[in-house]
Amino acid sequence: MLGRTYDRENCSAARTLELVGERWSLLIIRNAHFASMMRFSDFQRRLGIAPNILTSRLNDFVANGIMDVDEQTYRLTDKGRELGEIVVALTGWGDRWAAPDGPPIVYAHTGCGGAVTMRASCDRCDSAPPMIDVVATPGPGADAVQRERLDPGQGKI
Amino acid sequence: MLGRTYDRENCSAARTLELVGERWSLLIIRNAHFASMMRFSDFQRRLGIAPNILTSRLNDFVANGIMDVDEQTYRLTDKGRELGEIVVALTGWGDRWAAPDGPPIVYAHTGCGGAVTMRASCDRCDSAPPMIDVVATPGPGADAVQRERLDPGQGKI
Repeated sequence: MLGRTYDRENCSAARTLELVGERWSLLIIRNAHFASMMRFSDFQRRLGIAPNILTSRLNDFVANGIMDVDEQTYRLTDKGRELGEIVVALTGWGDRWAAPDGPPIVYAHTGCGGAVTMRASCDRCDSAPPMIDVVATPGPGADAVQRERLDPGQGKI
Repeated sequence: MLGRTYDRENCSAARTLELVGERWSLLIIRNAHFASMMRFSDFQRRLGIAPNILTSRLNDFVANGIMDVDEQTYRLTDKGRELGEIVVALTGWGDRWAAPDGPPIVYAHTGCGGAVTMRASCDRCDSAPPMIDVVATPGPGADAVQRERLDPGQGKI
């Protein structure tokens, strides 16, 4: 767990990384979700992770409600399944910047067969803004320091 | 660098994690992008990272084209700026599952002031499919093992 490392942070990205930011965590989630893996031995063989690390990761996922375990079968909960979105976002960046031979994997929508990517989406104008046009503003869970620091429209975390 | 850890992986998500999967990496990117931080001392003070770790992270970012450095001023490149999407995706999951007091930060579109989130998007039917309806299929950069393993429509990485 990275919990103690990021304890100073009142930030949802940091909290997500506390739960899935350790080495191998998101690749275990990837295989659970997109390769339907459920058993310790399958994760271990396919990923080649040291058994003690894999044990620690799976135990943490269960403790944090990301997986359920029953008779040594690990299944993603709804909370865990939504982490698929993080995997797809990581894949999109890697496809653009670190895939010289083209994307190894294309995510497909079972409903229609189309390609699925994660895209920025504005809830007001319905555009897909580039990151340079996106700033941080205080939300309902901001603390006093963040409210002072975050001048709306300026984006100072 | 996690490079050696994930060398077996022909996967864009793993390649992204090789570049930004170390502890603190994505929070440095977050502050560079959304808090406009540029100086070692600012990152160090705000994040409270050990200086040797911060030095390593910034050097790696420069070596991998994620940041440029000039007179000790670190600036995200286009490649680095697009990592903002990963930060926004991590934030979205954390807002839903790990923010009991509500979202600390809301990302805003400078163009219209709307709230920006990362959403799954299907390029064919234009819906925002839930992850349970998304599967992995072989892309142009898939290797022979992946092509054999990935039965289109089944999603086996």
